[in-house]
Amino acid sequence: MIVLKLGGSAITEKDRPETLDGKSLATAAAAVSSAFGATNDNGGGNAIDDLVIVHGGGSFGHHNASEHGVTTTAGSHDPAAVHDIHGAMTTLNEFVLSRLLEYDVPAVPVHPFSTAHRDADGDLTLPSQQVATLVEEGFVPVLHGDLVAHAGEGVTVVSGDELVVDLARSLDADRIGLCSTVPGVLDDADEVVSEISSFDAVADILGESEATDVTGGMAAKVQALLELEPEASIFGLADIEPFLAGDEPGTTVR
Amino acid sequence: MIVLKLGGSAITEKDRPETLDGKSLATAAAAVSSAFGATNDNGGGNAIDDLVIVHGGGSFGHHNASEHGVTTTAGSHDPAAVHDIHGAMTTLNEFVLSRLLEYDVPAVPVHPFSTAHRDADGDLTLPSQQVATLVEEGFVPVLHGDLVAHAGEGVTVVSGDELVVDLARSLDADRIGLCSTVPGVLDDADEVVSEISSFDAVADILGESEATDVTGGMAAKVQALLELEPEASIFGLADIEPFLAGDEPGTTVR
Repeated sequence: MIVLKLGGSAITEKDRPETLDGKSLATAAAAVSSAFGATNDNGGGNAIDDLVIVHGGGSFGHHNASEHGVTTTAGSHDPAAVHDIHGAMTTLNEFVLSRLLEYDVPAVPVHPFSTAHRDADGDLTLPSQQVATLVEEGFVPVLHGDLVAHAGEGVTVVSGDELVVDLARSLDADRIGLCSTVPGVLDDADEVVSEISSFDAVADILGESEATDVTGGMAAKVQALLELEPEASIFGLADIEPFLAGDEPGTTVR
Repeated sequence: MIVLKLGGSAITEKDRPETLDGKSLATAAAAVSSAFGATNDNGGGNAIDDLVIVHGGGSFGHHNASEHGVTTTAGSHDPAAVHDIHGAMTTLNEFVLSRLLEYDVPAVPVHPFSTAHRDADGDLTLPSQQVATLVEEGFVPVLHGDLVAHAGEGVTVVSGDELVVDLARSLDADRIGLCSTVPGVLDDADEVVSEISSFDAVADILGESEATDVTGGMAAKVQALLELEPEASIFGLADIEPFLAGDEPGTTVR
């Protein structure tokens, strides 16, 4: 089982509201299709048969969430906020699904707003048996950063990264891939750090992402991934295909 | 807690593919708004504060399901079937949500495909904590007949009626209302049967619905409702408002 995250900034123009990066999305879809199709042609049984995709919000979700003042902890009780933010994310999800279907990936939508919730402490519950069943039946479920019901707060944001970490645990994933706009975690000389095994060793080179991002940047990603059992790779668009083929491109967090 | 079903044939032109019955939907939205708003104005705490709406597919889901040969037990592994059938149902859901929002009902979407699944025996698991949390936070979740992942079958249909019965149990609903195209269960003289307490007593007057309906007609509804603890009312569009106000219009199944 592989959980692949397509970063919101990798598939959208993050600085321009609700603007798709169509070329990057097509590159990602082609890479997924190639890995998925190659396995099917060989009749093989390797991990690429079981794939879950999660995409971020990029310029679709973050600007809307900022306008409504909604974050992962500060909520809203306004149905218009749900309509705007969740609506923008489902619009992006439809673009991602359409492109994957064009490339013969059997992608189907799973909207976190319809299934997940947070308790009063903010702890996320994300049912995953529907995702597991879809995977077993040969589909590729595609989740996304979204809003979720939050006890006492109305609705709050759930990031793609939080979903990836939760799904990796509940689905007992073998590998996690995070496709970003950069080829990995970069050091001070802009070289890719090939391996990270503790946060302290890289704390000084990890900053926040520059564009509006209500859900944290690279530092938060690395911290969350370090707590997981399976290895995780952070890489750029060009490395989706080698990652799915079993390589360890970019930065490996273990 | 009230679970209100808006029958697919009550809000769509069931014989014409993907055609909304805009006037009926507006009538339903106005009735829900009136009951919901009246309570809020009074600052009262009666049951209408807690409302979940489920709508059927009518001409949006059933024709698409028939074309792909998908029923509640016969599935499909074709992503195009998911796109067509689930897509048609989410389109109808968007119409229903838009109309409810226009009438100031804080409606938000919950898509069963994103959360539910069936095991190999066809038994449905529908997580409901996200629905309960949305209700507690003041929203009106709106679910709908849909497809769901089904172990061994790919995806199969889940009917609005099946969702109503499942939600009524898991949310411990106080009352269930089924709004249909008829003012209740009709006897041989086309008079409304005011009360049903056993299936045998009405078996001879309950036929199947005439238009294409992959998910069963009135007979199946009554059988399922008889097995539930809370009372259920079956009524026409004109009786949504009295039902929500606490009356027992149409046919009461207990």
